[in-house]
Amino acid sequence: MARILILGAGVMGSALAVPAADNGHEVLLVGTHLDSVAIAAMRRPGGVHPKLDAPLPAGVRPIDFGALRPTHFAEAEFVVIGVSSPGIAWAVKQLNEMLQTPKPIAFVTKGLVRDDGRLSTYAQAVPPAVGLMQHFIGIGGPCIARELANRLPTASVYACADEKIATGFARLMQTSYYRLSTTDDAAGVEGCAALKNFFAIGVSAMQTRFTDVQRGGATRNPTAGAFNQAAREMALLCERLGGRRDTAFDLAGIGDLHVTVGGGRNSRLGHALGQGRTVSAAMAAELTGETVEGIDTARALSAWIPAASTGNATQRQGFPLTSAIIDALLDDAPFQFDLL
Amino acid sequence: MARILILGAGVMGSALAVPAADNGHEVLLVGTHLDSVAIAAMRRPGGVHPKLDAPLPAGVRPIDFGALRPTHFAEAEFVVIGVSSPGIAWAVKQLNEMLQTPKPIAFVTKGLVRDDGRLSTYAQAVPPAVGLMQHFIGIGGPCIARELANRLPTASVYACADEKIATGFARLMQTSYYRLSTTDDAAGVEGCAALKNFFAIGVSAMQTRFTDVQRGGATRNPTAGAFNQAAREMALLCERLGGRRDTAFDLAGIGDLHVTVGGGRNSRLGHALGQGRTVSAAMAAELTGETVEGIDTARALSAWIPAASTGNATQRQGFPLTSAIIDALLDDAPFQFDLL
Repeated sequence: MARILILGAGVMGSALAVPAADNGHEVLLVGTHLDSVAIAAMRRPGGVHPKLDAPLPAGVRPIDFGALRPTHFAEAEFVVIGVSSPGIAWAVKQLNEMLQTPKPIAFVTKGLVRDDGRLSTYAQAVPPAVGLMQHFIGIGGPCIARELANRLPTASVYACADEKIATGFARLMQTSYYRLSTTDDAAGVEGCAALKNFFAIGVSAMQTRFTDVQRGGATRNPTAGAFNQAAREMALLCERLGGRRDTAFDLAGIGDLHVTVGGGRNSRLGHALGQGRTVSAAMAAELTGETVEGIDTARALSAWIPAASTGNATQRQGFPLTSAIIDALLDDAPFQFDLL
Repeated sequence: MARILILGAGVMGSALAVPAADNGHEVLLVGTHLDSVAIAAMRRPGGVHPKLDAPLPAGVRPIDFGALRPTHFAEAEFVVIGVSSPGIAWAVKQLNEMLQTPKPIAFVTKGLVRDDGRLSTYAQAVPPAVGLMQHFIGIGGPCIARELANRLPTASVYACADEKIATGFARLMQTSYYRLSTTDDAAGVEGCAALKNFFAIGVSAMQTRFTDVQRGGATRNPTAGAFNQAAREMALLCERLGGRRDTAFDLAGIGDLHVTVGGGRNSRLGHALGQGRTVSAAMAAELTGETVEGIDTARALSAWIPAASTGNATQRQGFPLTSAIIDALLDDAPFQFDLL
């Protein structure tokens, strides 16, 4: 039995509490100021996270951030950060204020960090910012939180530069339905996890861009071709971000891309683009008020992989899909992509 | 302008005639004795292949096998073999009888050949069997024939040990909608192309095996986890078959697997297995009279990767999905697979 502290009671932070508690661990699930409704719901007897449809096991104790004390961190063997990407700086601040002893810290929060023209993953950018982070563990792979919380078979990968640490945490978390691999390529897992939302926009656009005139419904060659091209370009970007090519062709890359295409906000934006609409039109209609992570990634990638001076998308040599997505999102233009 | 002879007027052979003719080539589309209905339909003015829903361009001349002469082969720059897998020996016989000069020959027919406990791809087994085969070209990638015939964007890969030959043929065939890559890994492309039907059975089974109780419909974590596991095992098998690992993570591997899951006979068999039914039950119902290529591949793989003496599927170290599919198909047993 271990103690695990999860900071962030969104769907993913809360879902991770399920396998942890099923393994008999004591889980402290700490809501941020954004999670007060969910925490209140989960604290009721038989309470359920509003977006998970699954009651949490008895071993999970949901609390508000206001009740969190440095002793809770001190008592935890592992800390998991499950805030949303815009909350990462806030989470780093809390860790610096509350950690009193070195801790291994796992991240399900994903993003890329821009700094003076360079682009980094959290595996590179976050450890120097947290004084008492003993080990950075990245969590990746195809995991829709609702399905994990409902104990559906889910494969994920835990990554730590010191792979033994990832293995140790994976042993605590693995269940019959939560099947874990490990790797030492934390930069690769973090890079792919951040990129997959971006690429899901482009692959999803190909799901709606062409219709099967004779039989109706979606066409499949264009989607599969775009999925494959996304994998190729994700592998190249993964290497440029300091990760390994192989990581893109495993759970954090093609696995997560597979689950992300066809569901979620990034995919809905892609479907709008595929129908010939622009990002501003989609954000003013079915995506009003939503955060689409892939758009931030497009901005970061655009500065990092500049187009040639012609401004032509195809000038970003080797990155035709990346270019097509960037141009559609940042120029508010129709999505144009012809597979190669 | 070139002359291209396609032997086999099934959906794939006929669909390949479309980009070839769109590029201005003269295409002789030769039906086997199985294709007489399709050839008769296509020979009528404005005629359409019964399964393609797309009229062939004027540059395609459909003829019955009885009208084929050795001079037709002599006049063709490239020959394409598009018969079904069970017809490969017949096709080899015709080539040996009719070829009078060395020709490069491309194959869309896929399969694995068992010989004294060894397993080979067509790239290895067919060239020694055809006296005047100048070059073996393998064609792979995510291509539903109907969509190609309807000029929907389709990415494919042409493979030849001498990559220049693949590049030359790809130049003749590439159009704005048929986007071609090339590789020298013919064994890898052929291996993946034969394996993808087999793995599509297992991934498709995960599409129907679990239901989302709260919201209805398919679950997605199990499918993505199985897709990823299929890619891992396909890469291992690709290497064992003499191909390269990278080939499995490109168009002929993950690309073709992506398009094959969710459609076609192998996928329908997988859906039945996922519902807890057996292969004999499915073959006696919705698949009556159909050929499911993945079953033959299961037999070939079973002899090649023997289970340990316990007979336990998990004893095939590193191949849990392969084992689960083999056991379900060959033992007429329920499909059991837990992701790792």
